[in-house]
This record gives sequence, C-alpha cells and structure tokens, in this order.
Amino acid sequence: MAALFCRTVNTTDTIAAITTAPGEAGIAVIRVSGKEALAIADAVFRGSGEAPSARSANTFVHGYVHPPKQSESDAADIDEVILLTYRAPHSYTREDVVEFQGHGGATSARRILRTLLDAGARLAEPGEFTRRAFLSGRIDLLQAEAVMDLIRARSDRAAVAAVEQLEGSLSRSFTDVYDRLIAVAADLEATLDFGEDELPAATMATLRNQLDAVKADLEELVATWDEGHLLREGATVVISGRPNVGKSTLLNALLGADRAIVTHQPGTTRDVLEEQLVLDGIPLRLIDTAGLRNADCDIEQEGIRRAHSQITSADINLCVIDGSETISDSERKHISVRDAEGCIVVMNKCDLGRRATDADFPELTTITCSLRDGVGVEELRQAISDKIGVTQSAPSHATISERHRLIVQCALNELNDVSRLLASDQDEFAVVAAGMIRTALEQLGEVTGRTYHAELLDNVFDRFCVGK
Amino acid sequence: MAALFCRTVNTTDTIAAITTAPGEAGIAVIRVSGKEALAIADAVFRGSGEAPSARSANTFVHGYVHPPKQSESDAADIDEVILLTYRAPHSYTREDVVEFQGHGGATSARRILRTLLDAGARLAEPGEFTRRAFLSGRIDLLQAEAVMDLIRARSDRAAVAAVEQLEGSLSRSFTDVYDRLIAVAADLEATLDFGEDELPAATMATLRNQLDAVKADLEELVATWDEGHLLREGATVVISGRPNVGKSTLLNALLGADRAIVTHQPGTTRDVLEEQLVLDGIPLRLIDTAGLRNADCDIEQEGIRRAHSQITSADINLCVIDGSETISDSERKHISVRDAEGCIVVMNKCDLGRRATDADFPELTTITCSLRDGVGVEELRQAISDKIGVTQSAPSHATISERHRLIVQCALNELNDVSRLLASDQDEFAVVAAGMIRTALEQLGEVTGRTYHAELLDNVFDRFCVGK
Repeated sequence: MAALFCRTVNTTDTIAAITTAPGEAGIAVIRVSGKEALAIADAVFRGSGEAPSARSANTFVHGYVHPPKQSESDAADIDEVILLTYRAPHSYTREDVVEFQGHGGATSARRILRTLLDAGARLAEPGEFTRRAFLSGRIDLLQAEAVMDLIRARSDRAAVAAVEQLEGSLSRSFTDVYDRLIAVAADLEATLDFGEDELPAATMATLRNQLDAVKADLEELVATWDEGHLLREGATVVISGRPNVGKSTLLNALLGADRAIVTHQPGTTRDVLEEQLVLDGIPLRLIDTAGLRNADCDIEQEGIRRAHSQITSADINLCVIDGSETISDSERKHISVRDAEGCIVVMNKCDLGRRATDADFPELTTITCSLRDGVGVEELRQAISDKIGVTQSAPSHATISERHRLIVQCALNELNDVSRLLASDQDEFAVVAAGMIRTALEQLGEVTGRTYHAELLDNVFDRFCVGK
Repeated sequence: MAALFCRTVNTTDTIAAITTAPGEAGIAVIRVSGKEALAIADAVFRGSGEAPSARSANTFVHGYVHPPKQSESDAADIDEVILLTYRAPHSYTREDVVEFQGHGGATSARRILRTLLDAGARLAEPGEFTRRAFLSGRIDLLQAEAVMDLIRARSDRAAVAAVEQLEGSLSRSFTDVYDRLIAVAADLEATLDFGEDELPAATMATLRNQLDAVKADLEELVATWDEGHLLREGATVVISGRPNVGKSTLLNALLGADRAIVTHQPGTTRDVLEEQLVLDGIPLRLIDTAGLRNADCDIEQEGIRRAHSQITSADINLCVIDGSETISDSERKHISVRDAEGCIVVMNKCDLGRRATDADFPELTTITCSLRDGVGVEELRQAISDKIGVTQSAPSHATISERHRLIVQCALNELNDVSRLLASDQDEFAVVAAGMIRTALEQLGEVTGRTYHAELLDNVFDRFCVGK
C-alpha cells in the first residue's frame, strides 16, 4: 500500500461526536474513539460494577453521566445512559471505543457530548470514524464510500446496492481486475529480458488477450454507473407552466398528499417547492416552480428566475398546459425548446373541454389528464418511469459512483494506448507500455484506496455526516 | 397499587420500533421488547458466536440482519449491525430486549424494522416501551413523564429539572406527602372508635397540624408549576405591527441569523414564521406575523387573520412601530388594547429621527432602537427576560407539570374542605373527613401512578414519541 501523508487530520487523538440524527426520539448515541476513550469514560461515568476501563470488551452497563471528576463532584447528573465498551482492535475504528446511549432530543445528547469534550475528547470531523476505519485497514475506500451511500440511500434498491458494496462485492471486482493487470505488467516487463527479435509471438498474443479481458471488465464496471447514478442521486423532475394551469395540483397528485398550498389565484407558489418521491425504486426530486409569466412583483420575479434555472438542469421536464384552452405562443415556445427525450407535456383540465391535442406537439410525449379528479395520474407516472429508463428488476450488483467512473475512464484511456502500442511494432514499446500500465494501476488503486493521498481522503470523507 | 384494567394496549406481545430520530446520521437503533424478542433476533441475525438467544445478557456482537428464516435463505443482507442483548428483568421494560444498531438515514432503519415485523414483532405505539417500564413497576408515572420531558427539553435548565425528576426527586416529594396523608387518615379513622365526647383535644390538634403541613407541602409543589411550565412549554413571543416597520428585522436581530426574507416591499411575510430561541435557559417560541393592514389579496388576508389569533394567545407581545413616523390611530388602538404586563412597544428606526416617544405609551414598557444597526437589541432581550420573570439561577428541583397541578389542586380543594370540617363541631365529621382524605389520596395517587386507569395512561403516553 502506497500510503502517502495525511495532511489535515490528527489520527491519534481521541474524538467524539453524536452519531444519531438530531430530533425528538427515544435515544441518541454519542461515540468516542481513541486511546483516551476508556479514561474519558472513567472520568464521566458512574454505574454499577467496575469502572469502564476495567470492563470486558463487548459488554454494556447502565449508569449515569456526570461532569468530569476535576469539577465539583456532587454536580447534578447529565443523563441516565447505557455505556457500551469496545476494545481495540475489535471496533469500528479498530481503536478503543465507548458509546453512550442517552435520551434523544435537542438538549440531552448535546450535554453529554459537551461533557465528553470537557473530559478531553476532540469533536470529530465529518466521516472521521470511518476515515480511521479505513486508515486502520479494516475496510477499503469502496466500503467506506458504501457506508455513506447506505446512509443516503433513498430507496430499497439503493440500500441493497450499498450493502453489497459494503460487504465487498465491488472491492472484489476491482481487486480481481487490479491483480490481473499487475500480472500483465509483470509479464510485459519480463519480455524486456529478451532481445526484440527473440520475443515469442505466443507470449505477446497472450498478453494482448489478457489486456483485452481486463479492459472488457473495466468497461462493464463503467456500465454500472448509469444505474448507480440514479440510485444515488435520483432524477430531477421539474414541473413548469403558466400560472394556474395546475402545477401544484400535479405535485400533490404525484405525491398523493397536500404538500403545496393550492388556490385559484394565479401566482400562489412563490418559492421553489421540492419533494422526494420514490418511483420504481428510483428516488425523484420533484420540483414545483413558480408560474411563468411577466410579474411586476420583485419577489415573484426572483421565483420565476429560479424556475428557469431549474428547468434547464432537470432530467425530466413536466410542461403543464391547460388543455381546455388554446396554447399560447409563449407556451408553445417554452415547450418547443425542450429536449424531446426529457420532456413530457401534461395537458390538464381536459374535463373542461379539449382545445390542445397530441398533434400540437408531434415530437413530444403528451399525457392527457384531469389532475383535479386524479384522471391520467397513473399514465403520467408510467411515462416518467419510461423516460428515466427505470427497470423493475432490482440490480444484483453494486454500482460505481462518479468518482470511480472518472478514475476507471482515465485508466481505460491509458490501457487503450497500451493496446495500440502492442499492436504496433515500435522500438522499445514494451518499456513504454509497462510504464503506462503502472500508471493505470496507480489510478485504479485510488478506487479501493490501495493508493491514496490526503486530498483524495478529504474528498471522500467530506461528504460524510459528523458522527460516522 | 390499585391497578385497574388497561383498555387499549396488549401488554404481552413483542413490540418493535425505531428509537432514534429520522435523518441522515451515522447510526440508527431499532428496539424489540417482549417474550419473543430473542427468538425474533435468532430468526433475522447472523453473527459470529452463539445465536442471540444463547448469548449472555448485557453483551453485544457484530453481525448482519437478513430476512427471517422462513423466506429464501440466500437473500441479500439487510444491513450490517451491532446487536445488543438484554435479559428480563434487567432492561428498560423489564422484558427481554434486543437492540439493532444499524446505519442511519431514511432507508436502512426502516428496512430493519420491516424485517423484524416480518419476523413476528408488532409495531410499538408511542411511548409503549416506557408504558411497559411503568406497568412492570420499574419506574413510576412521574419518572415516565420525566423521560419525555428530557427528550423535549429545549434548554439546559429544562434538562437538569427533567433528570432530577427521572432520578426520583419529585417522586420522593409526592410519596412523602402521600404517606403522611395516609397517616392522617388512619389517625382520623382511629378516632371513630371513640364516642364523640371522649375525643382527646390533643389528638385533634395534632391531626390538624399534620394536615396543615401536608397542605403547605402541596402548595409548595403547586408553586413549582410556573417555572416548570416555562421550562417545558417555553414562552410565546409574538412580533406584530404595520407592514414594513421592521418585524422580520427584529426576528433576525433576536435570532442573530437571517431567517426571514427581508425586503423593502410591504407584505413580504405571508406565512407565520416561527423560530426557537433560548433566553436565560427559558425556550422562547418567537413568532413573526404578517403585517397588519387591509389587504386585497386572499392569501395575505388569511395571513393577517392568523396574526391576530397569535397576538391574542401570546405570553409576550412585541408591538413594533416606526419611531421616525407619527403613530397612526390604528396602531395606537392595536397597542392600547394589549395587556400591559405582557407587552413591549418596540420603537424602531430611531436613527431616522424620532416622532414617537415613551410618553406615547405611559402604561407600557417601551424600547427605543434601530434594529438595522443592532442598536437596542440587548435592552430588548433584557426587557423580554424581565417580563417572563426569568431568574438567572438554575432551579435546584424538579417542577410539576400541568397534569400534576390539576390533580394537586383538586386534592387541595378536598383537603381544605376537610380543614373546615375539622374546625367545625358537626356530628360525625370524622367519618366524612376521612372519606374526603381517601378521595384526595386517590387523586394524588394518579400523580405517581400508584392509582391509575387506562385513560390516564393513554393521556400520559400519547404525548410520547414512537420508539420510547
């Protein structure tokens, strides 16, 4: 493992953080990890039996947290807790770890954390526990990333993919490819001992075949990105249209709930409303925009400006029109500039008569509906599902992320150059090709963390929440 | 203990719930309690070492949750977890309890819970774990209520009071009063054996003294309600005034953050904005209302209607006026109907000149300020603090809640009647008085749960969150 230096984070002190979500709940958990974890527990915990540092690993005990011993000893208790004791290396971080399970809510967990900081712990950075799990070699970088993918998972399918990655399925794929590519590099370097004319043709053919197999496997991994991207990030669906054509009604119909305030007055929705919806296992960001019109009001104009920016970056645009009225020129213009692949024209209010028809937008998918009565909502869901390219079958494998895709793409470019070299008959091609394969290996090493540097780790762990 | 029937809840089956708050976080905990808890764990957990049901109490182990055994055995794992095993009676509920510590976030905990329900657990009702802790006699009703007070605590002082109550300080006070009142009743009943003229005067005097002491202690407990009420519920502070006098600026100044969108256009705030602020340990609900004016717009009129309703029910009203302009008649009318004790007139924009002065509202507290520049904000905080009657000293005792106050007040009414009877010389007063004391005892028993019925428990535990 080419462990370079780690710039930003002290990896030897003792860190603490609240590791459960904030909010009203039965319990909250505060985690402490590092050499001083047990000593800190001794200083703040009072329970039956031995002091925390004398307790067996993998046991828990009931007791109370109080201010650390150096302060007044008869101070009021902070909380009633369950204390869990882990001993290195049998913990998440492979360090000594104690966890305090206290009461949930806004105040109690914060008070326990403050007490632990008073007793000598440092507040953990985002992802710092998992960073230590990686640095200690307990998990690789792919597994570390799966932890946060699982926490962020917004559908069952995303969770299944993340658990697979956490259990090492993707790590095994990458390790297998990496090991085979090392073999190719070694074989290629072995040919350097021969004179150029002495090279057995069979060896070169084998090398080329092996390289092609590696490249095919890497291409296959890249192909998992599309699905992984949707599972991780979800698709953005933006609802737009003139005021009062039924945009908020559409949002509510898709959600099956009265999220947006619906009135008959044009311009009700000033802010951009965003909702989450899971459609066939894919999370959707459903965005309701302000009505598009020339508004005099400053605040409304700001809303409309935001709407335009949302429309441009959407995966799917639902352009809502009042199907009972004639399509206006500005509507026609707004809709015609949309990309056909990502656009669905929703012709609403068809119970009030029909003046707009499918023929008005021959290039686009159109859905005729009466949202107020729920007519056409199922067809619309199906159309969105088709546009996103969602398949009902769950994925049976972990999928790569944007970070992995960029790395694999670079490595593939390198290996394609190697293929071209091997096909040509240039002088000393083997030396150059071997060097290029080593470059590709170093790149691929950054996927699993076999090769890493501080900046890479900062990038990976900055997207973590505090407490993991 | 007079245990009446418990109508609504089956107390013998096995219940499960997510016991941490929802949201992105390192971990989530799912709790299972009841006779089948260990068997359910056996059905869904795969780890190193013995099956959960064979493990020692108060230990934990790393492993994986999978769908229950009756379904396909090679199904994908649900999550990687830590499993905690408690054995009856050494658990929160005094039943067998297992806890699964899995990954946080929206999806993973829900998937584990679903797996446990598939394996035979029932989803727990709000507060049902704590209800079982009460029914098993592990804690009394005051301690059960302290659990939720602690979880809901919005300041350190509220948390300190709740922990004291959880540790039994209030229970001890009530038990002491209760036991002494039982002694009074017994002594009084003993006098029934005497003929009316044979009663020793000394005995009656002692009885009266004992009763007075009990009543004094109950009065003292009632007196803790004011403070307890503020710690639990907080005070409601409503900001009102004409459009564009600086209401939203005031909210932001008190919060020290840009919560409300501030523009120069009148009528920007349509909805009622609510924020939390802790002032000297007391949580405040800070409410910014729509500007008070005659608006044409439906939505704005609805906002103004809501503002009026907020103003009427506020603990403190901050009436904001533009101090650089002459006070309008409608402003003067709006402010003059306010209760002097709960009203502060905020004369804003005094950097732009002063046309309003303290003399305009001789009965009311007035604060002169220029909120845009932060001038007068500290004085305003102090004035609010004074109005609420906040003292800087932390309370050294637990405080009673509204439920307790109502009960104690009823009991006190009963005991006052007893005092009147004892002071009079009516026939057979002792029989009647003893009966009234028994009534008071039964009432007081409902504070600690010594006496309870299903409706009482439903009322107490309905305000709990699910998972506690």
